[in-house]
Amino acid sequence: MSLVVVGSVAFDAIETPLGSTNGKIIGGAATFISLVSSYFCPRVNLVAVVGGDFPKETISLFKAKGINTEGLQIKENEKSFFWAGKYHDDLNSRDTLVTELNVLGTFDPVIPESYQDCEYLMLGNLSPDVQMTVLKRLRKRPKLVVMDTMNFWMRPEVLPELKAVLAQVDVLSINDEEARILSGEHSLVKAAKVIKKMGPKTLIIKKGEHGALLFGPQDELFYAPALPLEEVYDPTGAGDCFAAGFIAHMASKNSTSLEDMKRGVIKGSAMASFCVEKFGTERIINLTADEIAAREQLFADLVKI
Amino acid sequence: MSLVVVGSVAFDAIETPLGSTNGKIIGGAATFISLVSSYFCPRVNLVAVVGGDFPKETISLFKAKGINTEGLQIKENEKSFFWAGKYHDDLNSRDTLVTELNVLGTFDPVIPESYQDCEYLMLGNLSPDVQMTVLKRLRKRPKLVVMDTMNFWMRPEVLPELKAVLAQVDVLSINDEEARILSGEHSLVKAAKVIKKMGPKTLIIKKGEHGALLFGPQDELFYAPALPLEEVYDPTGAGDCFAAGFIAHMASKNSTSLEDMKRGVIKGSAMASFCVEKFGTERIINLTADEIAAREQLFADLVKI
Repeated sequence: MSLVVVGSVAFDAIETPLGSTNGKIIGGAATFISLVSSYFCPRVNLVAVVGGDFPKETISLFKAKGINTEGLQIKENEKSFFWAGKYHDDLNSRDTLVTELNVLGTFDPVIPESYQDCEYLMLGNLSPDVQMTVLKRLRKRPKLVVMDTMNFWMRPEVLPELKAVLAQVDVLSINDEEARILSGEHSLVKAAKVIKKMGPKTLIIKKGEHGALLFGPQDELFYAPALPLEEVYDPTGAGDCFAAGFIAHMASKNSTSLEDMKRGVIKGSAMASFCVEKFGTERIINLTADEIAAREQLFADLVKI
Repeated sequence: MSLVVVGSVAFDAIETPLGSTNGKIIGGAATFISLVSSYFCPRVNLVAVVGGDFPKETISLFKAKGINTEGLQIKENEKSFFWAGKYHDDLNSRDTLVTELNVLGTFDPVIPESYQDCEYLMLGNLSPDVQMTVLKRLRKRPKLVVMDTMNFWMRPEVLPELKAVLAQVDVLSINDEEARILSGEHSLVKAAKVIKKMGPKTLIIKKGEHGALLFGPQDELFYAPALPLEEVYDPTGAGDCFAAGFIAHMASKNSTSLEDMKRGVIKGSAMASFCVEKFGTERIINLTADEIAAREQLFADLVKI
C-alpha cells in the first residue's frame, strides 16, 4: 500500500562519546523514515523541502531506493535545515549546538496528485502546523495516520497546534520523557491515559535501550524489548527508524490491526537497533533482507522461552 | 526440592514519595525471599538471626507458611538488624537514614542437620563472609547456588570477599547500577562479560521498571519486561522477591535448565510486581494461587502477539 512520509530532509553534525561526524552529514526525520520504509514498501512518497546545497546524489539514492521524490521541493537559492548536537555520556540526553531552520522556516508542503490515494501517512517530527497542512491537503483521510513529535513542540506557546494534530492521528510515537512532559504524569501508565484522551487511540512510548511500550485502543499493553548492544555510536534517527519500521510494516501488510501494530513495534525496534550502530544514515543505507530478517529473529528470541 | 535461604530478617522503616511506614515494620532479604518462596516450595529452610525484639507472631507466620525456622537463631538479649531509608521522587535511588547492624554484626550462621540435603541455595543480600560460611557449612554442594548482593559489598575494602563468593555461585542477581559498579563498564552487555568471568555462569541484571535481562552460560540473552504500574508504593524487597520467584521456580521444578531459568525470571518479575504495590511485606503475605497465576499471565501477555 502506498505510504506518504513528511518530515525534515536535512544536514546534521553530531558528537557522541564515541566520536564525531567531523562536519555535516545527511540527516532529518523523513530521510531516516523514507530510507527504512523503502525496505518494506514498494512505494514511499516523500514530502519535504531542501535547499540548493543538498547533494543531488542523495536525491538519486532516494530514487534508486524506490522513494518517490515528486513531493520533495528543492529551493535552489536557499539552504537546507541544519542541526548540530552533542550527546552526553549516557546518550540519553543531548545539547543542541546549532539549529538553522533555513528552508524549513517557510515550508509549505506540496502533495503531488500521485500521492492522493495514500492509505498510510507518517507525520515525521516537524512543526505541527506543517503536519496539519499535510493532513488537510490529502483529500482522502488515510487508513492510518502515525505521528512522531518531540518536546520542542510541547512548549506552551506551540502546544495548541500540537494538540490540534494529535486530535487527528491514530497512533502517536514519542519517547518516555516526551510522554511525561505532554501528560504531566510521571507514571507512563497514567501518562498514556492522559495522552490517549488527546486523540490518538494507540500510543507508543519509546524507552530507548529499555524498549518500547504500546498502549492499544482498549488499554491493551504490549512490551517490545530493545536489543542490548555493546556500543551505541549515535542515537540520532533511532526514533525515526523505529517509526519507519512500524508504519512500513502496517503499510506493507495493509493492516491496522493490533496484532500487526505489535509486529510493527518489533520491526521498528529492530530497525532502530541498526541505526544506532553507526553515525547518521550510514548503517541503514545498505541493509540486506537477510540482515533485517536475522535482526528481527534476534528480537523474537529475546523474549522466547 | 529443598531450598535453603540465608539473609537478613530484620526491621525496616521506609519513606517513599507516596507515604511512610510510620515506624518499624518487618523486613530483611530472607524475610521477603522465604515468604515468596513458600508459595512454590513445600520446604523452605531459613538461615538467619534476630534479636529478642523480633515479633514471635512473625516467626509463627513463617512456620504457618511452611518455612522451616530451625536455622533462625534468636538472640534474646540483643536487638534485630534495623535499616531506615528514604526514597527519592523517582524511586530509583534512596538515602539510608539509619543502619543498626545489631545481631547481624556477629552473625555466625548455623546450618541444621535437616538442611544438609539442600539442593537449591539462595544467598540473599548479606555480608559476603556470611554467604561464604553458609556455602562452606553445607557438606554437599547444592545443585544451584543463586546469589544476590548490593553495591555496599562492592567497596574496595570488601570486594575481595565478594569476589571469593562470586567464584562459587552459579547465578548472580544484581541491578543495573550494581552491574556497572562491579564491572566498571557502562554497557550492560560488556558488564555481563566481565562479571561472568568472575564466576557466575549465568547473570541476571534487574532494571526495575525496565524489566530484567538474563545472560546465559553460552551468551544466550533473555529479556523479561516489567509490568508497567500506575503507582509504585515501595520498592523495598522487590529485588528479594524477584530472586525468590526465580530460585523457587528452579527448586519447585528441580531444574537447572536455561528454559526454566527464563521462566524463573518471569516468575521473579511477577512476584516483584506484587511487592512494590504496598509497603514492606504487606502485599506478599496473603497472595492466592489465582492471583499469582493471573499476574504471571499478565507478564506472558505483555510480549505476546
